[in-house]
Amino acid sequence: MTSSACTLGIDYGTNSVRALVVNCVNGRELGTCVVNYPGGHQGVLLDAANHHLARQHPGDYVSGLEQAVRGVLKQAAVNGGFNAQQIIGIGVDCTGSSPLPVDANNKPLGCAPEWENNLNAQCWLWKDHTSHQEAALITNTAAQHYPHYLAKCGNTYSSEWFWAKIWHCLNVDPATFDAAYSWVELTDFIPSLLAGVSDPKKIVRSICPAGHKALYCDEWNGLPDKKFLAMLHHKLAELRDRLYDKAHDATVSAGKLCPEWAEKLGLPVGIPIAIGEMDVHYGSIGSGIEEGVLVKAIGTSTCDCAVVGADKKIADVPGICGIVKGSILPGYYGIEAGQSAVGDIFKWFVEVVCKGNENTHEALTTEATSLRPGQSGLLALDWNNGNRTILVDQLLSGLLLGQTLYSTPAEIYRALIEATAFGARAIIERLTEYGVPIKRVVCCGGIAEKNELLSQIYADVIGCDIHLSGSGQACALGAAVSAAVIAGKAAGGYDNFTEAQKHMTSLKARLYRCNAANHEVYNRLYHLYRQIHDAFGGVDKNCDLSQIMKDLIHIKTQATA
Amino acid sequence: MTSSACTLGIDYGTNSVRALVVNCVNGRELGTCVVNYPGGHQGVLLDAANHHLARQHPGDYVSGLEQAVRGVLKQAAVNGGFNAQQIIGIGVDCTGSSPLPVDANNKPLGCAPEWENNLNAQCWLWKDHTSHQEAALITNTAAQHYPHYLAKCGNTYSSEWFWAKIWHCLNVDPATFDAAYSWVELTDFIPSLLAGVSDPKKIVRSICPAGHKALYCDEWNGLPDKKFLAMLHHKLAELRDRLYDKAHDATVSAGKLCPEWAEKLGLPVGIPIAIGEMDVHYGSIGSGIEEGVLVKAIGTSTCDCAVVGADKKIADVPGICGIVKGSILPGYYGIEAGQSAVGDIFKWFVEVVCKGNENTHEALTTEATSLRPGQSGLLALDWNNGNRTILVDQLLSGLLLGQTLYSTPAEIYRALIEATAFGARAIIERLTEYGVPIKRVVCCGGIAEKNELLSQIYADVIGCDIHLSGSGQACALGAAVSAAVIAGKAAGGYDNFTEAQKHMTSLKARLYRCNAANHEVYNRLYHLYRQIHDAFGGVDKNCDLSQIMKDLIHIKTQATA
Repeated sequence: MTSSACTLGIDYGTNSVRALVVNCVNGRELGTCVVNYPGGHQGVLLDAANHHLARQHPGDYVSGLEQAVRGVLKQAAVNGGFNAQQIIGIGVDCTGSSPLPVDANNKPLGCAPEWENNLNAQCWLWKDHTSHQEAALITNTAAQHYPHYLAKCGNTYSSEWFWAKIWHCLNVDPATFDAAYSWVELTDFIPSLLAGVSDPKKIVRSICPAGHKALYCDEWNGLPDKKFLAMLHHKLAELRDRLYDKAHDATVSAGKLCPEWAEKLGLPVGIPIAIGEMDVHYGSIGSGIEEGVLVKAIGTSTCDCAVVGADKKIADVPGICGIVKGSILPGYYGIEAGQSAVGDIFKWFVEVVCKGNENTHEALTTEATSLRPGQSGLLALDWNNGNRTILVDQLLSGLLLGQTLYSTPAEIYRALIEATAFGARAIIERLTEYGVPIKRVVCCGGIAEKNELLSQIYADVIGCDIHLSGSGQACALGAAVSAAVIAGKAAGGYDNFTEAQKHMTSLKARLYRCNAANHEVYNRLYHLYRQIHDAFGGVDKNCDLSQIMKDLIHIKTQATA
Repeated sequence: MTSSACTLGIDYGTNSVRALVVNCVNGRELGTCVVNYPGGHQGVLLDAANHHLARQHPGDYVSGLEQAVRGVLKQAAVNGGFNAQQIIGIGVDCTGSSPLPVDANNKPLGCAPEWENNLNAQCWLWKDHTSHQEAALITNTAAQHYPHYLAKCGNTYSSEWFWAKIWHCLNVDPATFDAAYSWVELTDFIPSLLAGVSDPKKIVRSICPAGHKALYCDEWNGLPDKKFLAMLHHKLAELRDRLYDKAHDATVSAGKLCPEWAEKLGLPVGIPIAIGEMDVHYGSIGSGIEEGVLVKAIGTSTCDCAVVGADKKIADVPGICGIVKGSILPGYYGIEAGQSAVGDIFKWFVEVVCKGNENTHEALTTEATSLRPGQSGLLALDWNNGNRTILVDQLLSGLLLGQTLYSTPAEIYRALIEATAFGARAIIERLTEYGVPIKRVVCCGGIAEKNELLSQIYADVIGCDIHLSGSGQACALGAAVSAAVIAGKAAGGYDNFTEAQKHMTSLKARLYRCNAANHEVYNRLYHLYRQIHDAFGGVDKNCDLSQIMKDLIHIKTQATA
């Protein structure tokens, strides 16, 4: 084993960075190391006056990278017979869209002393929703003048995405915008850091965030037309020249490990760095994605990925975060959907409402497991953080109904899990309705693994078997798979993803089969869910309550001012 | 003072019985004694398998009566210069509709050894909702054949009321129904007990529960026609003969204190017993009710009372629990409305959801007080126990919307208080729309007294000043006022309620003025509340989501079976 080739996967999550060493021959994970970001609240910089804001200090990414990689190499060595010279490639995945402003030398603005306390100069974390007005304006402008831009991203541009965030920065803090030479997705920034790229124009950009979040498409020559951007703001049009012309799929390397970082990390100089992808895109590869499989990464939020051969004609799917050729696997359309909050909703209920902790989660899960479907009499919407798919509306909010004077926390907890399952089903129905085949669901992420109740409810609500990814760190594993492919067979890796996935990924033996009786009850509850969903989501034009949640936010904003 | 006439008010609440000694000259309260019912959960017999069920053991009423009266007489004597011979009359108020089955000797069935463990043989507490199907059938049958019956009780017969409960007993437990010679409202039973009435036909029945809960009206010769009752069940028609022909207002005495109970209580034999009224009806008298005043008794639920001179022509008001001549003050129509849960909703949230206690209530109130109207972004419906007025639908349930990942317990707590205020406003708007003058609101009950935040929110939501009843035990005081009137001026009491109220009741100096700026925000929130209220309550026929809560109950019932 000592001579086996290994790759390193690095996974930037919402609260921490994880490094993983994987044996390319058999996918064995030789070690893992997680480093929590030291800044803010659990790594996220917040603003008490504005709950929509979520930023991250780029310095935490840089220091975390070194600690995590050093840590995992040490651990793998301790575990036996490994040395860092076996590493033949590095892959990186990150949250996204999480753009950060950089200077002309590709240094993050937020790391410069004069900017380090300015929240707008930090990385704008995926879940930052401050730019909902800009997102709506982008949607409106594109709908009027460039409707084909919208068709690829579900007909609505989201406040979670690249252009909305950058434009919001320009609107609320022009000094920061002006100080930035360029903006880089974290997914592109980390590989560029490892590769020692000091000119933002030379960063090898990934098609993954570009296509899903920045309206990039080869069909219209890359990023959005300058004329379109000028309709938003002339400075955005000018910025386009300082971004990039071409974005790439995972057949292209992001560069080679530079001497400075090779020394910092204790790795061989010059090993290839795979192009970055967003966390769940690589997570889906680590979970064995192929045509017909939906991979659901269930964490604080959920990201759903599917692929369809690029040779097929595929319709644009309304409300889906994007259909981008090569964004997951080269040669396939990558399809991304998702729910804006899943684990975060349970966490909110347990920690904020019930003032509980991990033990509370366990106790509530145990109690909720003893309930039958429908027994709580409760129904909830999974919109506490808005709705990403299929409504693409971050200004929607949570709803719970059916409470009596006896409704227990466990019943509410179960209703919240069920709500996320209903949301998951709405996504699958939308995909299959538009011709994306879904035969099997594979879940990855801590929540699916730890919470048997959730997996069973998902199986019963969706009506199909739920598999679990064999790896507990599917994203990092997928990044390591990509690293093995970019390193190539000659170096001890693979020439294509199919081969690499076959050897390096797996499913857990335990799977959750749909219980037909439960499914029947959930069909009825899902019907009720859809009525509420459609009324408050504005889908049902006859019974349209969609203004209510928005009016409440409006009144709240005025009351808080 | 020693020679002053006093009266005794006895108030049967949901969890306890209270006795109060009041000086007739100045309304000074010489002593009070509260005895908790020992049975069940906080005095209420529950059924874990059926949350709609709420019963009470009649033995608890009897033992509680003796303890409470003995206790208050002792306390008044200790407080100085009082002896029991000063008592010139007794008044009793009770929850209602709370009917109990009695045998031919006016003994409660639930006190007989062979029935004491049968929940159906106990008193059917006001908040028992097991008979919702019977209530719906009564509504339908009356609507078809006797529509004038419904017009007096808001067009819907409630599951909380007399006939629905008795019919449900007949349906689910005919043996108990057959064993009962008659059924008596608690309001009539306690005075009959004190008066030593041993024949149910000789009980002096009060117009108050009869008119509001049992479809009694002098216009149609008393209780509902036997033909109507036979349409429900022939045994109900037969029961009518064993009930009563005439019900009375407070000008009629329920009898004189019998020797047996005079000895048990240590009171003069033969003093008059005022006719019973339901708790809040006497509570409104104790709070100084007159034309133009709405008295809100805010406790576990809310009961709202108003009066309109019997010389006036008053329209039937849809959704109002009843308009009954003489049910509160003789010579006035008594109007009753109410909310099925108020304090119970806060209690549920604090104790069941947050696992808190009284301190939690205080902490949440303090935190919620610092919020401005609209600042929570939350909106709730006050339907956790159904909606009594104006929808008269016990199968409605709670709803909360606007939750984010940051919504705090204090924000939810405030939203729940606001929801009850919106429900209160809906009632007032309905009354004034139909010509019942409301110029002032007087609140009584522990919650209004203790919770300044609630009173201020009610003032701001309703848009008028909120006064508080001068007495902390307005119901018992009202019963004592009635006792002073039935005793008469010659005995040291009064010849009419106006005089008695003038001397014996008061308002607290502290009042809550409507804040115009808050009122403006609440007008906007109330508009949103009404949208949700009308959609889920089935009022808005274009956007009708009223089936959802019922479907959930249906699914829940099947899942629980």
